[in-house]
Amino acid sequence: MIKIGLCGLGYWGKNLFRALSGNPAIQLVAVADAKADVLDRLALTHPAIRRYTDAMDLIADPDIDAVCIATPVASHYAQAKAALDNGKHVMVEKPLCTDSAEAEDLNARAKLYGLTLMTDHTYLFHPAVTKLRELVRSGELGHVSYFDSQRINLGLFQPDVNVLWDLAPHDLSIIDYLFNGEPIHIEASGYCHVNAGFPDIAYLTFHYPNAMVAHLNLSWMSPVKVRRIAVGGSDKMAVWDDLDRNEPLKIYDSGITTHPRQDRDIILPNYRIGSVTSPRLPENEPLADIIEHFRRVVLGEEIARSDGRLGARVVRTLERAQVILDQSLKQVRTAMSEIPLSIEAA
Amino acid sequence: MIKIGLCGLGYWGKNLFRALSGNPAIQLVAVADAKADVLDRLALTHPAIRRYTDAMDLIADPDIDAVCIATPVASHYAQAKAALDNGKHVMVEKPLCTDSAEAEDLNARAKLYGLTLMTDHTYLFHPAVTKLRELVRSGELGHVSYFDSQRINLGLFQPDVNVLWDLAPHDLSIIDYLFNGEPIHIEASGYCHVNAGFPDIAYLTFHYPNAMVAHLNLSWMSPVKVRRIAVGGSDKMAVWDDLDRNEPLKIYDSGITTHPRQDRDIILPNYRIGSVTSPRLPENEPLADIIEHFRRVVLGEEIARSDGRLGARVVRTLERAQVILDQSLKQVRTAMSEIPLSIEAA
Amino acid sequence: MIKIGLCGLGYWGKNLFRALSGNPAIQLVAVADAKADVLDRLALTHPAIRRYTDAMDLIADPDIDAVCIATPVASHYAQAKAALDNGKHVMVEKPLCTDSAEAEDLNARAKLYGLTLMTDHTYLFHPAVTKLRELVRSGELGHVSYFDSQRINLGLFQPDVNVLWDLAPHDLSIIDYLFNGEPIHIEASGYCHVNAGFPDIAYLTFHYPNAMVAHLNLSWMSPVKVRRIAVGGSDKMAVWDDLDRNEPLKIYDSGITTHPRQDRDIILPNYRIGSVTSPRLPENEPLADIIEHFRRVVLGEEIARSDGRLGARVVRTLERAQVILDQSLKQVRTAMSEIPLSIEAA
Amino acid sequence: MIKIGLCGLGYWGKNLFRALSGNPAIQLVAVADAKADVLDRLALTHPAIRRYTDAMDLIADPDIDAVCIATPVASHYAQAKAALDNGKHVMVEKPLCTDSAEAEDLNARAKLYGLTLMTDHTYLFHPAVTKLRELVRSGELGHVSYFDSQRINLGLFQPDVNVLWDLAPHDLSIIDYLFNGEPIHIEASGYCHVNAGFPDIAYLTFHYPNAMVAHLNLSWMSPVKVRRIAVGGSDKMAVWDDLDRNEPLKIYDSGITTHPRQDRDIILPNYRIGSVTSPRLPENEPLADIIEHFRRVVLGEEIARSDGRLGARVVRTLERAQVILDQSLKQVRTAMSEIPLSIEAA
Repeated sequence: MIKIGLCGLGYWGKNLFRALSGNPAIQLVAVADAKADVLDRLALTHPAIRRYTDAMDLIADPDIDAVCIATPVASHYAQAKAALDNGKHVMVEKPLCTDSAEAEDLNARAKLYGLTLMTDHTYLFHPAVTKLRELVRSGELGHVSYFDSQRINLGLFQPDVNVLWDLAPHDLSIIDYLFNGEPIHIEASGYCHVNAGFPDIAYLTFHYPNAMVAHLNLSWMSPVKVRRIAVGGSDKMAVWDDLDRNEPLKIYDSGITTHPRQDRDIILPNYRIGSVTSPRLPENEPLADIIEHFRRVVLGEEIARSDGRLGARVVRTLERAQVILDQSLKQVRTAMSEIPLSIEAA
Repeated sequence: MIKIGLCGLGYWGKNLFRALSGNPAIQLVAVADAKADVLDRLALTHPAIRRYTDAMDLIADPDIDAVCIATPVASHYAQAKAALDNGKHVMVEKPLCTDSAEAEDLNARAKLYGLTLMTDHTYLFHPAVTKLRELVRSGELGHVSYFDSQRINLGLFQPDVNVLWDLAPHDLSIIDYLFNGEPIHIEASGYCHVNAGFPDIAYLTFHYPNAMVAHLNLSWMSPVKVRRIAVGGSDKMAVWDDLDRNEPLKIYDSGITTHPRQDRDIILPNYRIGSVTSPRLPENEPLADIIEHFRRVVLGEEIARSDGRLGARVVRTLERAQVILDQSLKQVRTAMSEIPLSIEAA
Repeated sequence: MIKIGLCGLGYWGKNLFRALSGNPAIQLVAVADAKADVLDRLALTHPAIRRYTDAMDLIADPDIDAVCIATPVASHYAQAKAALDNGKHVMVEKPLCTDSAEAEDLNARAKLYGLTLMTDHTYLFHPAVTKLRELVRSGELGHVSYFDSQRINLGLFQPDVNVLWDLAPHDLSIIDYLFNGEPIHIEASGYCHVNAGFPDIAYLTFHYPNAMVAHLNLSWMSPVKVRRIAVGGSDKMAVWDDLDRNEPLKIYDSGITTHPRQDRDIILPNYRIGSVTSPRLPENEPLADIIEHFRRVVLGEEIARSDGRLGARVVRTLERAQVILDQSLKQVRTAMSEIPLSIEAA
Repeated sequence: MIKIGLCGLGYWGKNLFRALSGNPAIQLVAVADAKADVLDRLALTHPAIRRYTDAMDLIADPDIDAVCIATPVASHYAQAKAALDNGKHVMVEKPLCTDSAEAEDLNARAKLYGLTLMTDHTYLFHPAVTKLRELVRSGELGHVSYFDSQRINLGLFQPDVNVLWDLAPHDLSIIDYLFNGEPIHIEASGYCHVNAGFPDIAYLTFHYPNAMVAHLNLSWMSPVKVRRIAVGGSDKMAVWDDLDRNEPLKIYDSGITTHPRQDRDIILPNYRIGSVTSPRLPENEPLADIIEHFRRVVLGEEIARSDGRLGARVVRTLERAQVILDQSLKQVRTAMSEIPLSIEAA
């Protein structure tokens, strides 16, 4: 029975609390949160769990084997480092941290100490992602040329991360899991409704070495919630609509073959449009699964699916995308400042 | 009763033929198409319509008041110029032509001769666009900050235009009609599945001087057809799903107000999420409406909604976007050539 | 080239006109309609077609091989009889007529004269129905226990038929085509919004000898249009949503096996819920197909799918259902008249 | 702080357990369940809650103010009676019991003792039902002529109740809450897939004295889950799709006015089809709300919305419908036995 401490009882921390409590092979022994009232409420219902207002004190607690970190992103690095230095296995909420050098440092420490470092990219445990990986890896889709994600909704403004760092980790971790590899070229643009320089809409294009393009349409400003990923292959195409309760994953038997056209220097495609299949997905709870997986990884029974290196690759790509995004925002500001007056609607 | 000649009986030309024939105040007197069998079939059902294999001969026909041009894009300029030079009013299928200098030239000739030059941006006559314009112009949406379009499907490869020139004119003409103005900054990337340098997927971001961003996700490679435009305003947001038969246009009473947050240098938004309304739209046939509008413009009874200047602005923006898109494609090719070997899926 | 005359140019007659004109192996030589202006307009566009204001005159026209009847239902019998007596093949819009004895009489005459009598149950030529029949007949669905149809919408009030006679023929003809057989027991109830004794909503349950129940929910009073048929089998279930453009037909791999429960006198089912498949359907135009089929049947090249006997079975079932429906309406009226006063909403 | 005991920790009992635990003004002091392992698990996580294997022992526990009963339906009456006789307030899972005389008896006892008797018709606390009631009671819908419910899905076979008693209570309680009144005429038919005489599909038509018809399509055998209620009024119509996350309730501005038709003895309707509105509904948790409501009713602070009399009316209607349903099943069996041989598919 491994003993786990949880840092942070915010939105995601509460979910982790539930998942950790629900795993019969895990003992959730301590919790840290800066807010006293959160801990007071916990004391009533779970008096046996030790409570800390400072995450660093929990991390120093000798009677803890592993730590789950769900505090604001800015504190991930310091806490994860301290936990590793204290000999504890660590799982960090996504994104792993805010800086790729720090991410490398965490991985180096984990390796040095022989400890587990995992990033909580929960989507990698979603049955639809498992199925998508199977479709990609088995070759059933053929050569995958595009990954198109729409991840938009209203009302989940995060105070400490912009929309890129909030939403793109989901797609980037899925892309890494399905295809491996980091992008060789990145394009990015965005829009800041609320805070200058802090995008709440971002459009990103990632070009991968295996001739795949990934496009992400991310927004906190859409009245309609969309969570939709399309993966286009030469033989089949798959569309995952995370909000569709009945048939979240659809596989289209829509292959494209090309043939040269006689009278022009152009090749025209032949489309083969066939049936659509929606496979039955198991009804796993991804968060429960990643918690159980973390436990087994700590015990050496499984190899980490969403390890610190994957987490570091995601941070590195976010970092690169942020540079491009900042350039775009600056170019737009410059262009704006150069126009004599704004064009009015007639 | 004005007399109209139609150049081109391809996919769109057939639709124009039907719409022109259906207008009781228009006399469709002549048709040109390079394919003899197309003209032969026409002879059986409509023997009274004059037939030309060369569009230039139709354009020279003295007993024609106005010409509709629905031939391949590459021939638009020459035919429209000839028609204007022959004293005929002209409506050209979108895009107006392939070059902004030529577009300017056409407008200059039309002005010089006092003739009508219209571009057949049919969507400007769609009841949903009419309603969207009303929502924008009346201020009901508040300040519009984004326009997000997804225009994807399978199987409409055009041999003579890439996906940018094929699909973006719809969005660009709608943006022009709703908001006026041309973008001050453009970002573009794409993917070429079938022909190198000839994108069949394109992602475009247009920044407009009135602090609006427009994003277009265009594809000929999607197994699912989507025709969806979201217009986000500070007071309300509208989403038009052109494939939704029941409620194509939805207006979300979802305003966002911002308030400074005490303990941070950041402003957090308040969302006000209210009801959703789907207004009843009239059941006009946009193509019949633009044909009748063209007739009235020719007769001086109406002012052209989709005139040659709007068509020229669309061409100019396409031209600018193509430059950016080509740069992106080149950068990706360079990046690809520099990697030692492609990363394989594990 | 067979010569066909068309009686009736109303809503459905116009569709038949288009389909007949579009068949190159058919010569539409004459049309009858009581409205002079309809015929006058036809004279302008199709001067070669002979015009009659009295369908009986068309039927007497010796230069006609076959007649399509799309006049109001009340006149079907007389016209079809006259046409057969005049030696002409006949296809009658659904329902065949208003009385099963008359339907028998028509079939007897057709048999006696060796002429074709078909009912225009166009749905039998719909690709989804073809596929459903294949699923049923091949045994892929297993034993089919229920057929559940919702056929509701707003605004298609027919002046001469109630909702039962207007909408149920679609389902009854499909059931006949898929399963054969007539119901052994019928239940029916309804509601009359507009005309007493003339239901605009009807709920029908048909019990078939092969242990199948069919339920029809028919309405002219629904703000939402639904055209949905579910066919439930012991191995698979199929749902056809006629308004779904993308995946109209879905096949659910959802079998049910039963097992006795130890501690009770009851059997509990095991559900096996598997994947969902939406087969690619051909894009036939059912009306064009039934017209071509009629032509071939007349020429002896094919055997009628939707013959007069099927049409007669549909009429017989409608007749029986009408009796039950009338009983129900009467019972409700009686019950209403017996309550001392209506119960008011608080 | 009232002290509540809960009988039954099955599917619904677990939900009640969660809701009771989550109410800070309620003390969940005891639980009864026949299964020892269920109680053993509870002992680990909630050692302070008293545990009983026999519900009657819990009911006799003097330190309990009120009892929630979520045991199999057959035991509802005996337990509710015992609880009332022991001076405890009672809330019973729907349906209240299996017999209307018993339901009357329970109400009589509650009245005699001055205790609260409530039925847990949770839907009456659903925001959509609250809104529907508002629409009906304010007259916004005009005269409501039909209530059409589809409540179908796969896999929730209940061992102790048939589909009528399992699913119809939802609709019957909603109808009672919206409109008051009991049906004056009932029609029913069904189908028994698994156990003879025990329908798993039921079609019901209820005629109400205020000239409203309610139709229920209930099934445990549908591969697709549908939870959809349409309420049709003379001015507006409302459709509630309980599975639509975005716009569960839609109000259609689709009124119908009638006008006599000159040339016939029939009246034709004019349809006025307007916009569709989806009001923003509060995000209440109905079960939490009914629990809090029960607490307040017990304390005399509120008047019971879903009281024992409403529960009794629902049971009485179920009882009447069961009689009709049995008649139909018998008629079908008789008809089946009279046919010489089943009709085979060709």
